[in-house]
Amino acid sequence: MEGGGGAPPRAHEVRLKIVCTSLCHTDITFWRMKQDFPAMYPCILGHEAVGVVESVGEHVEEVSVGDTVVPVFLPQCGGRADCLSARSNICSAVAHRHGFMPRDGTTRFSLASTGEPVHTFLSVSSFAEFTVVDVANVVSLAAAALPLPPEMACLLSCGVSTGVGAAWKVAAVEPGSTVAVFGLGTVGLAVAQGSKMRGAKRIIGVDLNPDKFEIGKRLGITDFVNPNDIGEKTVRQVIKEMTGGGADHCFECIGSTSVMAEAFESSRAGWGKTIILDTDAGLAPVSISSATIKWGRSVTGALLGGIKPKDDIPVLAQKYLDKELELDEFITHRMGFEEINSAFDLLDQGKCLRCIIWMDDGAKK
Amino acid sequence: MEGGGGAPPRAHEVRLKIVCTSLCHTDITFWRMKQDFPAMYPCILGHEAVGVVESVGEHVEEVSVGDTVVPVFLPQCGGRADCLSARSNICSAVAHRHGFMPRDGTTRFSLASTGEPVHTFLSVSSFAEFTVVDVANVVSLAAAALPLPPEMACLLSCGVSTGVGAAWKVAAVEPGSTVAVFGLGTVGLAVAQGSKMRGAKRIIGVDLNPDKFEIGKRLGITDFVNPNDIGEKTVRQVIKEMTGGGADHCFECIGSTSVMAEAFESSRAGWGKTIILDTDAGLAPVSISSATIKWGRSVTGALLGGIKPKDDIPVLAQKYLDKELELDEFITHRMGFEEINSAFDLLDQGKCLRCIIWMDDGAKK
Repeated sequence: MEGGGGAPPRAHEVRLKIVCTSLCHTDITFWRMKQDFPAMYPCILGHEAVGVVESVGEHVEEVSVGDTVVPVFLPQCGGRADCLSARSNICSAVAHRHGFMPRDGTTRFSLASTGEPVHTFLSVSSFAEFTVVDVANVVSLAAAALPLPPEMACLLSCGVSTGVGAAWKVAAVEPGSTVAVFGLGTVGLAVAQGSKMRGAKRIIGVDLNPDKFEIGKRLGITDFVNPNDIGEKTVRQVIKEMTGGGADHCFECIGSTSVMAEAFESSRAGWGKTIILDTDAGLAPVSISSATIKWGRSVTGALLGGIKPKDDIPVLAQKYLDKELELDEFITHRMGFEEINSAFDLLDQGKCLRCIIWMDDGAKK
Repeated sequence: MEGGGGAPPRAHEVRLKIVCTSLCHTDITFWRMKQDFPAMYPCILGHEAVGVVESVGEHVEEVSVGDTVVPVFLPQCGGRADCLSARSNICSAVAHRHGFMPRDGTTRFSLASTGEPVHTFLSVSSFAEFTVVDVANVVSLAAAALPLPPEMACLLSCGVSTGVGAAWKVAAVEPGSTVAVFGLGTVGLAVAQGSKMRGAKRIIGVDLNPDKFEIGKRLGITDFVNPNDIGEKTVRQVIKEMTGGGADHCFECIGSTSVMAEAFESSRAGWGKTIILDTDAGLAPVSISSATIKWGRSVTGALLGGIKPKDDIPVLAQKYLDKELELDEFITHRMGFEEINSAFDLLDQGKCLRCIIWMDDGAKK
């Protein structure tokens, strides 16, 4: 490909040398939905990573060549109403465009043989030695007091931040509260970890895979519900019995509308919140009973767990360095870039949480 | 009927002489749904009223004979976790029971001829000269600095409090924000009034009935959308154009799941809230796109607009007396109790907001 993996950065853009990247389930989902988004392909997948700034375009003052940064699919321009408000992490100035750079709608990749454009994925495209991203989509970790290991920075790029952020910023889990987490992948387990950090007294994990339970305990899960092991009862019944009427906070971390509805019905009257962190891959709507919601319940959705990347990822990094946030457990596999296809297999089969893929195999621990 | 309209009050109960009452659309809904709740009938309808305490049962210390009180369908015991929390207005101690008194599951009415029980409606049954209600379901207005006219107290018993409360307690409408109100009955117009009190800069009313627009302006509506007058466009398109992307707060005040979905899609990304104040009479679920909600939107439901009756109705009464809250416009008709059937007709035909029904016709203004 042109320029060894990406044309030079244009205005407001930076080119990164990827240090390591990891596979998130969203990569698999979009890879599977190829036929639904034909204009996005061919593309370079990958959006969870850490990199070093190799060069910068015009008007980039926030980062310099040599800085270690975390690219993030969600931009934060910092200057417009939404970015300036504490209420939102949606940047309306630098909108995401499927397959293209956000500001000018072109791409920085092309096939060397034909010149055909190769598309950007989620504004990041980290499965490459070099990539170009908008400066609104990078977070500098220079502010952290101690250097963060690259693997931990990589985790904060998407999945772990989504889960921890959802407990912290969206639900604002209260000390002593009860939490139910539906789906114990990386996002769900990060919700558990975030809820534990916030002082939740009971964190119920719901998953069909009993293998998830041991690691769940280490990350904050206090009780387990396997829908296959509850006989004639429904999950909502079991959770209501365990919590005396329903959980204070229910998190859906799977992307299934039937699970979203079950999570909602498992929330308590009065102030029960349901937080939806994933989208149904079939784009089906979720059905909410208007009679049930009236008893003081709510349903909220969020991207990246409601966190503002540039403000909040450095805070999470510091919490890891201060040993308030557990991250090491999320890394179940490490490999070199040439083995990336096996990372897809492992995640698809539910056999890993995060697999760190090192671009320079020699750096792999 | 026994005892001139209600047996004596038992422990924790009070018997009220109704001064005036008004018809709320929920009375009509339940009257129409008679076949869905056969165990509730026969019953005495009515739940929006003001009365004077005629006698009290054991353990009643909060009110005394002669006090003017507002009966409310939603109880507030004041002593248990939910009542003590600022987060909820759902009292889990004195639960509502369809057709019966909340504590002992009996009724205080019976047919004199056969002794057959006559049921309580929404814990109030105000379409009677005397009724018996739990002390958790009455609000004393003794704390208001000036005496509140009975008609205004009656309005605060349900519909107006629901709408004003929704803007104040559930949405917590911010100064300068944009609001869309779907359905301009009493609840919707009270949402407009509450939003105006909170400093909303733009309050868009959506209704099929053009007659609602004039009174809407007087209560705070700044812009009108009649779905019959927007050609090929959808309501969500029109509201997004008017607000630059969607309203900050969308209130559904009709009880239609299709309108709930339209309200949700009319809310802005980032922090758009949809507040559901009514239940679909057919008990159909509302469909919410999991892709749309993820952009920082939320849906919340509430009973009585999230207000805690004993804490918040006196505050609203004081705001009326201080001329911060407009109530007079909601009263479109007045009549004596013998004319109550015409009140049903007027409300059903959308020809009135609140019709005040005086038990003693001589007191009618």
